[in-house]
Amino acid sequence: MTTLRIDGGTVVTMSHKGIIRNGAIVIENGCIVDVGKSAELKRKYSGYEKINAKGKVVIPGLVNTHQHAAMSLLRGYADDCPLNEWLEKWIWPLEKHITGRDIYVGALLTAVDSIMGGTTTVNTMYHYMEGGNEAQAFAEAGLRGVIGHVCFSWRKKEDRKALRNLAKDWHNRENGLIRVSVDPHAAYTVDPEYMKELRETTKKLDEKYGSPNSPIIWHMHVAETQDEPEKIQQAFNVSIRGGIVEYLDSLGVLGKDVIATHCVALTQRDIKILKEREVKVSHNPVSNLKLASGVSPVPSLIKAGVTVALGTDSPCSNNDTDMFGVMKTTAILHKGIHKDPTLMPAEQVLRMATIEGAKALLWDKQIGSIEIGKNADLAIVDFKKPHLCPLFNEISHLVYSARASDVDTVLINGKIVMENREITTIDVHKVLEMAEKTKEKLLARLESTTNNL
Amino acid sequence: MTTLRIDGGTVVTMSHKGIIRNGAIVIENGCIVDVGKSAELKRKYSGYEKINAKGKVVIPGLVNTHQHAAMSLLRGYADDCPLNEWLEKWIWPLEKHITGRDIYVGALLTAVDSIMGGTTTVNTMYHYMEGGNEAQAFAEAGLRGVIGHVCFSWRKKEDRKALRNLAKDWHNRENGLIRVSVDPHAAYTVDPEYMKELRETTKKLDEKYGSPNSPIIWHMHVAETQDEPEKIQQAFNVSIRGGIVEYLDSLGVLGKDVIATHCVALTQRDIKILKEREVKVSHNPVSNLKLASGVSPVPSLIKAGVTVALGTDSPCSNNDTDMFGVMKTTAILHKGIHKDPTLMPAEQVLRMATIEGAKALLWDKQIGSIEIGKNADLAIVDFKKPHLCPLFNEISHLVYSARASDVDTVLINGKIVMENREITTIDVHKVLEMAEKTKEKLLARLESTTNNL
Repeated sequence: MTTLRIDGGTVVTMSHKGIIRNGAIVIENGCIVDVGKSAELKRKYSGYEKINAKGKVVIPGLVNTHQHAAMSLLRGYADDCPLNEWLEKWIWPLEKHITGRDIYVGALLTAVDSIMGGTTTVNTMYHYMEGGNEAQAFAEAGLRGVIGHVCFSWRKKEDRKALRNLAKDWHNRENGLIRVSVDPHAAYTVDPEYMKELRETTKKLDEKYGSPNSPIIWHMHVAETQDEPEKIQQAFNVSIRGGIVEYLDSLGVLGKDVIATHCVALTQRDIKILKEREVKVSHNPVSNLKLASGVSPVPSLIKAGVTVALGTDSPCSNNDTDMFGVMKTTAILHKGIHKDPTLMPAEQVLRMATIEGAKALLWDKQIGSIEIGKNADLAIVDFKKPHLCPLFNEISHLVYSARASDVDTVLINGKIVMENREITTIDVHKVLEMAEKTKEKLLARLESTTNNL
Repeated sequence: MTTLRIDGGTVVTMSHKGIIRNGAIVIENGCIVDVGKSAELKRKYSGYEKINAKGKVVIPGLVNTHQHAAMSLLRGYADDCPLNEWLEKWIWPLEKHITGRDIYVGALLTAVDSIMGGTTTVNTMYHYMEGGNEAQAFAEAGLRGVIGHVCFSWRKKEDRKALRNLAKDWHNRENGLIRVSVDPHAAYTVDPEYMKELRETTKKLDEKYGSPNSPIIWHMHVAETQDEPEKIQQAFNVSIRGGIVEYLDSLGVLGKDVIATHCVALTQRDIKILKEREVKVSHNPVSNLKLASGVSPVPSLIKAGVTVALGTDSPCSNNDTDMFGVMKTTAILHKGIHKDPTLMPAEQVLRMATIEGAKALLWDKQIGSIEIGKNADLAIVDFKKPHLCPLFNEISHLVYSARASDVDTVLINGKIVMENREITTIDVHKVLEMAEKTKEKLLARLESTTNNL
């Protein structure tokens, strides 16, 4: 039996136990078996291998509910240009040359970066390919994740195959670290019939490979920008009267296993439907601002009782994987926009990045808080830093002052994947070298096509 | 002669020389004497002590144009409450017990934290007291700064004395590292007559202690919130028809030596006046969002030709000193609010945090860019990190992906004040201990008064 006792730190449980100072967490075979005061647990589990967390704060590993992990390869490739130009002139032409191997390398870079920022679960949407994929990268890094294959009307045949292989090869693998999802790209790129088909596909794949404790979920972009009704009209000649959520509901595809990302351009009716259908929302404020999409009505969603979690979006629309940055932006943005400093208090935001994130991925029985019986996904944050001093309130510091780089040690499924900021699972230096080389080759392939035109 | 050659890095000059890859910077007695290609300068200055900057990016030290440095002691003391409650119930009652020694300790903490985030110049507004002050703290840390004394109508006598002593004791001291300013708190706390008197005071102090190359400037909060006209009416029975800037202009107090912080609630006429009077603006987006003040019309200010620089505001309204965070928020916020992804491109934002900051403090002849003849205020940023990989564009990474913690080495006036993230001037561990103890004593003093009531 592998045993471990994290001792002497402040434990922010995100459960009914609240904050335990001079606390301890006991882990057996990857699971949390006890949480309490250090003095008591020290006696009870004296022989256990110990991690000293004095001066540190232990939180549940952060849950990033929206990523395109492989796209770290395009970080900083194009910024500050109109969305259409960004996609059509820069991102898509380069993405045409992306191979399975590139996806693997990009996802590896994101996996390492995520862990180094205290993120232990990542929900990622990208192309599932032969010869390399995001699941493989996450598995090597020891990162927990939901790996999706993104579906478009223009490639139904490839999608069907990819979805089957992804579910068969990866769902509930790596001691349950890896799950998979079905990811219709968006309502304007997936036609109504294909949308319904994908819903049916999800059901079938879940029946075959999933279980109530490990479901196959549905992950899609919803209402990222105001012009989606117009785009749907243009693409599929379908006219939309209400909002995008109302339209999706008319197709019968919404449900509690759906995570809708962005939800910027919502109607009041849309918010009501999201609540009724128990759809989960992934809020990506940094990306929404950077890509000039706008601001999601998060306070209204929360007031309506919708589960709202947080995401970074891809490393080329953010441009990092820092969930601490997303927490801070969430906490301050809605205050400023609505001129109400009581909106989105720190504790609510930390919930969104932990337990609400787990709920959004239907993974909250296993992760999202520090509780007996849950998997040991933990981030240990070093508070002995000038910007985290003096200390009045740990939650305030975690949301308003801490940075990804303050995370000292990370455990996923009870395994130490980073210790004193050193990744234990893979050689970071090699990953950086691979990423730089992969980017160079990708640019060379783009250039050779351009020259051949 | 002290000599130094920073060698082999990418030099982001923020001057007409642009970006120099495999570049070098040569320093003699605190001044930059050469900037160019490494290969050439290596031969020319072969005997100089060398800092290896391979894999790193050298930028001008960041200029933080609005701080209340001592307030780091209240970081996280109260968040998420209405502005009035925040000030009246939390901040002001505690501040009543603040001593000169506390101010010194708080400023020392901010100074260390600023340097660790690549900030080399800080413009700070707080109470100048006997027995300890911000200037002393900055001097010990080796940080460049403009130290202001904040003035209120209710304490004119103390203000007059403090302003005289501050200018006499500190202006242009520490090899020119420390300058001072006159800081009327705001238009609603300084009555019209006192405002005019302070303008006159500034002129006199500048004549006595300042010089064209080292002026004493004027630093104040301007139009932070929409309700300032109402507050002025209530406080001084003065009725205001236009905006706050128009009101200040009617008093004849505006000029090119004025740095106006926040400028959130501006009229079109206000913007015109700011340009005409050559007033400089300090934009503090993180604080403005957190305190629910709103969003400054920065794109309009820049379009009108106003110099706009960046600031963090105090560590209890932000809650950190991270200028990288402020750069990213500036770059994404205005895009999102105006739904225009071309607003505030990365290079413009980096200018605001460097050369425009120097201009705003009338310090641009000496700092703000990497140019021959300027003081060597430099931040060396380590790019060998997952979140700064791969590399397409250094400026994009600096604004959208880099964090305070990526700063590796910092020079101010040619002196290495941080090397490999170790502060060389003071013992950081001791500063943290002092800050924590100082906070405890401050709370104890507050509690003893409360108990005596």
